[in-house]
Amino acid sequence: MIHKVKNRIDEILNGVSTEDVPARIFQVFIITLIFLNVFAVILETVEGISSRCAVAFKAFDAFSVFVFTVEYLLRLWTCTIDKRFHSPIKGRLRFAATPFALVDLMAILPFYVPMFLPLDLRVMRALRLFRLLRILKMGRYSESLRMLGNVLREEKEALLVTVFGVSILLVVASSLMYFIENAAQPKSFSSIPAALWWGVATVTTVGYGDMYPITPLGRFLGAIIALLGIGAIAIPAGIVTTGFTKEIQKRHGKKSKCPHCGNDINEPPETRSMTHKTP
Amino acid sequence: MIHKVKNRIDEILNGVSTEDVPARIFQVFIITLIFLNVFAVILETVEGISSRCAVAFKAFDAFSVFVFTVEYLLRLWTCTIDKRFHSPIKGRLRFAATPFALVDLMAILPFYVPMFLPLDLRVMRALRLFRLLRILKMGRYSESLRMLGNVLREEKEALLVTVFGVSILLVVASSLMYFIENAAQPKSFSSIPAALWWGVATVTTVGYGDMYPITPLGRFLGAIIALLGIGAIAIPAGIVTTGFTKEIQKRHGKKSKCPHCGNDINEPPETRSMTHKTP
Amino acid sequence: MIHKVKNRIDEILNGVSTEDVPARIFQVFIITLIFLNVFAVILETVEGISSRCAVAFKAFDAFSVFVFTVEYLLRLWTCTIDKRFHSPIKGRLRFAATPFALVDLMAILPFYVPMFLPLDLRVMRALRLFRLLRILKMGRYSESLRMLGNVLREEKEALLVTVFGVSILLVVASSLMYFIENAAQPKSFSSIPAALWWGVATVTTVGYGDMYPITPLGRFLGAIIALLGIGAIAIPAGIVTTGFTKEIQKRHGKKSKCPHCGNDINEPPETRSMTHKTP
Amino acid sequence: MIHKVKNRIDEILNGVSTEDVPARIFQVFIITLIFLNVFAVILETVEGISSRCAVAFKAFDAFSVFVFTVEYLLRLWTCTIDKRFHSPIKGRLRFAATPFALVDLMAILPFYVPMFLPLDLRVMRALRLFRLLRILKMGRYSESLRMLGNVLREEKEALLVTVFGVSILLVVASSLMYFIENAAQPKSFSSIPAALWWGVATVTTVGYGDMYPITPLGRFLGAIIALLGIGAIAIPAGIVTTGFTKEIQKRHGKKSKCPHCGNDINEPPETRSMTHKTP
Repeated sequence: MIHKVKNRIDEILNGVSTEDVPARIFQVFIITLIFLNVFAVILETVEGISSRCAVAFKAFDAFSVFVFTVEYLLRLWTCTIDKRFHSPIKGRLRFAATPFALVDLMAILPFYVPMFLPLDLRVMRALRLFRLLRILKMGRYSESLRMLGNVLREEKEALLVTVFGVSILLVVASSLMYFIENAAQPKSFSSIPAALWWGVATVTTVGYGDMYPITPLGRFLGAIIALLGIGAIAIPAGIVTTGFTKEIQKRHGKKSKCPHCGNDINEPPETRSMTHKTP
Repeated sequence: MIHKVKNRIDEILNGVSTEDVPARIFQVFIITLIFLNVFAVILETVEGISSRCAVAFKAFDAFSVFVFTVEYLLRLWTCTIDKRFHSPIKGRLRFAATPFALVDLMAILPFYVPMFLPLDLRVMRALRLFRLLRILKMGRYSESLRMLGNVLREEKEALLVTVFGVSILLVVASSLMYFIENAAQPKSFSSIPAALWWGVATVTTVGYGDMYPITPLGRFLGAIIALLGIGAIAIPAGIVTTGFTKEIQKRHGKKSKCPHCGNDINEPPETRSMTHKTP
Repeated sequence: MIHKVKNRIDEILNGVSTEDVPARIFQVFIITLIFLNVFAVILETVEGISSRCAVAFKAFDAFSVFVFTVEYLLRLWTCTIDKRFHSPIKGRLRFAATPFALVDLMAILPFYVPMFLPLDLRVMRALRLFRLLRILKMGRYSESLRMLGNVLREEKEALLVTVFGVSILLVVASSLMYFIENAAQPKSFSSIPAALWWGVATVTTVGYGDMYPITPLGRFLGAIIALLGIGAIAIPAGIVTTGFTKEIQKRHGKKSKCPHCGNDINEPPETRSMTHKTP
Repeated sequence: MIHKVKNRIDEILNGVSTEDVPARIFQVFIITLIFLNVFAVILETVEGISSRCAVAFKAFDAFSVFVFTVEYLLRLWTCTIDKRFHSPIKGRLRFAATPFALVDLMAILPFYVPMFLPLDLRVMRALRLFRLLRILKMGRYSESLRMLGNVLREEKEALLVTVFGVSILLVVASSLMYFIENAAQPKSFSSIPAALWWGVATVTTVGYGDMYPITPLGRFLGAIIALLGIGAIAIPAGIVTTGFTKEIQKRHGKKSKCPHCGNDINEPPETRSMTHKTP
C-alpha cells in the first residue's frame, strides 16, 4: 500500500508523461511559485513596497518555504525508487548530493538558518537574496535550458578559443591605453585594471561613457579596439548560432529522410548503383 | 448590376493581381495616405510646426478619416462575397471581428469618439497618438511583414528559450549588482528593479551611462555580464537568421532534391511509390 | 598612328589585364592619389595643421586636380573606342553622362567653379568637402565594392522588410516613449522626432546617454525596446551574411564538382541509375 | 650521450605527444608562468599593491626571466636537431630569426637592457609594459589561436572588402557630420579627425556619449549612420562565422561525400579513376 503511494508521488514529482493531469498541475504550481518568489524578492527591495507589504511578503515566503520543504522531503523519501539511490540511507545521501537536490536544499535553507544561528543584519540581507537561487529549481522543469547547456558543452572548444582571444585583446588594449592615457587622465586610467573596465565597455560595445580616451593617440587606439570589438561579438555569435541550429535539428528528429524513397538525403547513394554493371 | 459593382469593388479593395490598374492605384493611394498620416502624427508633436499648421493638420486628418471610413464601409459591404462571411448580418459581424477589420476600425474611431463622448484633454492627446495605429493597416498590404511573422512563429520555441535564458541572466546579474553596489551608490542602485535597468542596458550593450558600477567588485561582475551579453545578442540573432534564410529559400522555390531518387524532399510522396514498378 | 596611341591610352586607363605594367602603375598611382586626397581633406580641417601647411595643401590640391583633369580629358578622348560611345560627339556626351564619368567630373569641378563664379565663404567650404567625393573614383578600381553592391542588390527584398520592420518599431516605440516621458522630461522628450533620436540610439544599441527614460513605466518600455533592438540587429546581419557567403562562393567558381567523378555534388544522380534496370 | 640529452630536451620543449609526462608538466608550468606574469604586470600598475609588494614583484620577475632565459638558451642549443636549422651557427641564427624565437627573446630582453644601457624613467616604464608581450609566447602552445589565424587568413579577401567599406562609410559620415555640427558645437566637432571619433563610436555602436549631434539635421544623419552601422557589424560577423564553422568542420574530420560516386569531395582523386574498371 505505502509502496503504491510512494510510486504515485514519485510519478507526480518527476512526471514525464504530459497526460498525467495531477503531475501537470503540480509542475505548473511549482513553476508559478518559483516565478512568484523571484518576483517577490525583486519587489521586496523597492523601499515603498517592502515597508507597506512586509507582512504579506513574510507570509508568502513562509508558505513557499513550506511547499518547497514538503517537496524536498517527499523527493528524499521517494528517491529510493530510482535504482541509483536504492539503499535507504546511503542512497538517500547520494541523492541529496545531486545538483538538483542541492539546489532544492539551497532554496529552503536561507529560511531555516537564522532560526538556529544568530546572524548579523548584513548576512541576513545576503541570505534573503539567496532565495533568488530558487530560480535554479526551474532547471529541473525547463527542457529548453538543458538544450542551451548542450549547445554550450558541444561548442566548448570553439568558445574557449574566443574567450581566450578576447582576453588577450582586452589585456593588450587596456595596457596600451593605460600607458597612453595615464598622463592625461591620471584619475580615470589610474591602473591597468581600471583601463580594463574601459576595455570591456568598448570591446562589448556597451560604452557607458564613464571612461574614454581624450588624447589623439588614445582615440586612434580606441577606435581600432572598438572596430576589433566587432569581431569579438561576431565570432561567439556565429559559434553559438551554429550549435543551436544543429541542436534544434537533432530535436525535431529531422533525420533528413527523403519522403519518397526513405533514404537519408545526407548520405550518398550506394556505389553499387553507380558503377556500370556489365552483366 | 449591383452585384457586379460589389464584385468590382471587392476586387479593387483586395486586388491580388498586379495587372489590375485601378486596384494598384487604390493600393498605392492607401499606403501613401497611411505613411502621410504617420508623418503627420509625428510632426504634430513638434511645437513650432503644430501651432503654425494646425488647420492643415486638422483638414488632412478629416480627409484621411473620410477615406478610411469609406474604405471600411465598402469592405463591410462587400465582405459577403467571401464564403466565410456569407450571411448578411452574422457574416458581417464575424468579418468586423477579424484582426484586419478591427485595425481598420481602430484607425477611424479616435476621430469619432470625441464627437459623442466628453473627454478630458489628456485622454484626447492619447487618442491622437492612437492614430499611429493606422500604420497597422500596412499589414494588409505588406507581404514582407507576413514573412517576418512566419519566421517568428516557426522559431518560437528557440526564441522562447533565449528570452527565458536572458531573463534569468538579467534577474541574477541585477540582483547581485544591487547587493554589491547598493552601499556605494544607494541612489542609483536603490532596488533590484532599478538594477534591472542597468542590467538591460548592459546585456543589450546599449550602455546609456546613467548607471554603472563603481566598486572594483561591481566592475568585475559588470565586465562579466557585459561579456555574457554578447551571447544574449548572438543566440537570437542566429535563430532569427536561420529562420529567415529558410523562409526566403522556400519563397524562391529552391526545392531540395533527394540524391537517391531525385524527388523533392519537401513534397509528400504520392500514394503509389515510384520505385516498385514491376512490369 | 594616332589611333594606336589612343588604343594604348585606353588600355592603360581601363587596363584589365594585370600583366600590363604601365596600366598597373597608372592604377596604383591614381588610387594612391585618391587616398592622399581624402587624407588631405581630413587633415585640412585640423586647425593647427591647416594654418601651418596651407601652401602645401594648395599645391597638392592643384597637382591632384591637374592629374584628374588630364585623366578625365583622356577618358573623354578615348571613349569612342568603346562601341557604345562610338559617335564623336553624341557618344562622348553619352559617355560623360555615365555614373563613373560624372564622378570623375565631380572630382575636379570644385576646383574650377570658384574661378568663374563669385562664391561666398560658406559655399566655398562646402565645395572643399566635395573633394571627398573623389573617394567615389575608387569604385572604378575596387572589385570588392562592386561585390558588396551585388549582395545588397540581391538581398534587396529581405533588407527592405527589415528596414520597414525597424521603422515601424522605431515610430511606435518613440511615440509611446514621448507620451510616457514627456511629462517628466519635457525638454528631452519634447516631441516624437526628439523621441525618435532616443529610439534610434536604443534600437541600434549605440546608447549615447544624452536621452533616456527616467519614469518606471518609461524604463520598462525602454527595456523592452532595447531587447527588441537585438532583433533589429540580428535580422539584417543574417541577411547580409547569407548573401555575402553566396557571392563569395560564386566568385571562387566553386561549382562544387566532385574531383573523383566530375559531377556537381549539389545535383542528385540521374534517376536512370536508381531504378532497377531489369534487362 | 650528449646527443641523447639534447634529443630528450628537444622532445620536452616541443613535446607534441600528450603522453610524454615531463613534456606535459613543462608546458603547463610555462603557460602558468606566462599567465602569472601578465597578471603581475596588470597588478603592478595598481598603486596600493605595487608599493606594498614591490619586493615580491621584483623577485617574481627575476625568477620568470631566469626560467624564460634558460628556456630560450635550451631552444637555441637544441634547435640544430631540426633539419631546417642544422648548421651550428648559421642554422642557430636562422632559428633566432623565426617569429617564435623573436617573441621568446622579446620576453626576456626588457629585463637585461637596463643593465647595460642607462635609460630614463619613462622608457623604463614602457619597457615594463613590454613584459606583457610574454603573452605572445602562448601562441606556441595554443592550437586554438592558430585556428583563429587560419580563419582570418582564409577570409582575408572578404574581410578587406568590409574594412574598406566601413572606412569609406566612416570618412564620408564623419566629414558630413563635421560640416553640419561644426557651427553648433565648434569644440566637439572641431575637425574631421575629431568627427571620426564620433563616427567610430557610432558605427561600432559603442556610443560613449562624449560626442553626439544636437542639430536636427545632424541627428537625422546620425540616425542613418547608426542604422547603417548595424550592417558594419553584420557583415564581418557573418564572414568570420562562416570561416570558423568551415575550419571546425575540417578539424572534426566531417568529410563531405559526393552523392554520385561516394568519394570525399575534399580529397584529390587518385591517379587512376575508379569508374573505368574494365574487367
